[in-house]
Amino acid sequence: MTYCVGLQIDRGLVFMSDTRTNSGVDNVSSFKKMHTWNLEGDRSITIMTAGNLATTQAVVSLIDERSKEPSERTPSVYAAKSMFQVATIVGDTLKEVIKTHANSGQRADSTFNASIILGGQVADGEPRLFLIYPEGNFIEAGADTPFFQIGETKYGRPILVRAYDTDMTFEQAITLLLVSFDSTIKANLSVGLPIDVHVYETDSLKEGQKVRIEADDPYFNDLSMAWGVALREALGNLDTFRF
Amino acid sequence: MTYCVGLQIDRGLVFMSDTRTNSGVDNVSSFKKMHTWNLEGDRSITIMTAGNLATTQAVVSLIDERSKEPSERTPSVYAAKSMFQVATIVGDTLKEVIKTHANSGQRADSTFNASIILGGQVADGEPRLFLIYPEGNFIEAGADTPFFQIGETKYGRPILVRAYDTDMTFEQAITLLLVSFDSTIKANLSVGLPIDVHVYETDSLKEGQKVRIEADDPYFNDLSMAWGVALREALGNLDTFRF
Repeated sequence: MTYCVGLQIDRGLVFMSDTRTNSGVDNVSSFKKMHTWNLEGDRSITIMTAGNLATTQAVVSLIDERSKEPSERTPSVYAAKSMFQVATIVGDTLKEVIKTHANSGQRADSTFNASIILGGQVADGEPRLFLIYPEGNFIEAGADTPFFQIGETKYGRPILVRAYDTDMTFEQAITLLLVSFDSTIKANLSVGLPIDVHVYETDSLKEGQKVRIEADDPYFNDLSMAWGVALREALGNLDTFRF
Repeated sequence: MTYCVGLQIDRGLVFMSDTRTNSGVDNVSSFKKMHTWNLEGDRSITIMTAGNLATTQAVVSLIDERSKEPSERTPSVYAAKSMFQVATIVGDTLKEVIKTHANSGQRADSTFNASIILGGQVADGEPRLFLIYPEGNFIEAGADTPFFQIGETKYGRPILVRAYDTDMTFEQAITLLLVSFDSTIKANLSVGLPIDVHVYETDSLKEGQKVRIEADDPYFNDLSMAWGVALREALGNLDTFRF
């Protein structure tokens, strides 16, 4: 599995993804699931992928190839005039890859499906955040649904639902997401460190700060410990049930 | 879906189940998923069920019927000499019901599967807690895995993993479980109040205290609010991430 979250706040977009992929518990590897395309002063685009690794890597490679040759920039995420167009390109590419594999006459134990979180800003548009389905269609985040999760989403959801705040700082948002990731990692072997982070600041139109949090990161380990203690304390401070 | 948790602590066993069943979002009802069989001074047995409602109700009815006629108390949960025998009876009954339905020549959109949490104490045995699979086999809780969840288990798991303590009081355990249920209910429509609680005290060999927490229960509502606030505070008190 995988765990990725894209979060929209007033200040911009925050992306966080784990790097563990597994095909059974004896075939575990690390792959980057976050990819960005940037053109300073014009656009910054980030995608995170969950699902069949062959599918998601093919999608990323196709998007990449098509954005390299200026003469072949159709459809390119660099040529798209809006984030909606970018989402359409990514969705079409995803659908195309799944269709190609599914029609190849081969059978696979797992399906070729994948989901993608896409976010960014193009020229004078707003920063936008999308969730793209294997069918190539997509939905957009808004005030009511300010974040998307893909992969192993359930363990880390309660804290996001409870503690999200639209005027958080980037640092607070990352802390919240790390707690959500920590809850997931504690409960599910198929999600693991290192964790990739990308922060896109509204109207900056360039790649934002990127961080990789490694398995032995002292801040993450302290946070995990502190959160465990804080949860127990918070629970202890609640009015205990009485019969 | 469903959410049920059976928790083993030093003082005994705590059972908690929701009551929502749904077959699609437009067919939602309330059914009791917790059932007890008690013989004072001799045994107390509790089961909680998740899965196909027709299957689980048939299992409960069969166990019930077979325990009513003293002359037909084989196999009866009242005649079983240990919790292991009770688990075997319940497992066999479950397997039998699923097999009957699956072989009837009919097809159903959903499978007939179900899982059961079983706990209790028989005569001079220890209190024991089991998780019974649709295949009729089962596993037992121990010091390393002191609780079992069935149904919609993921949302409520992180807090259980983090805050369980073997020497909790019953009241503390119920508070912890209510927080776990609250996290699940907040995130998933298919789990809902009322909540049933049964507390079995080690060596009491009789039905323990039973509580039903209704949808408008003021304690539960306060707890849910207080937990939301406590989570935000706990998060605010963590060392915020720095780039």
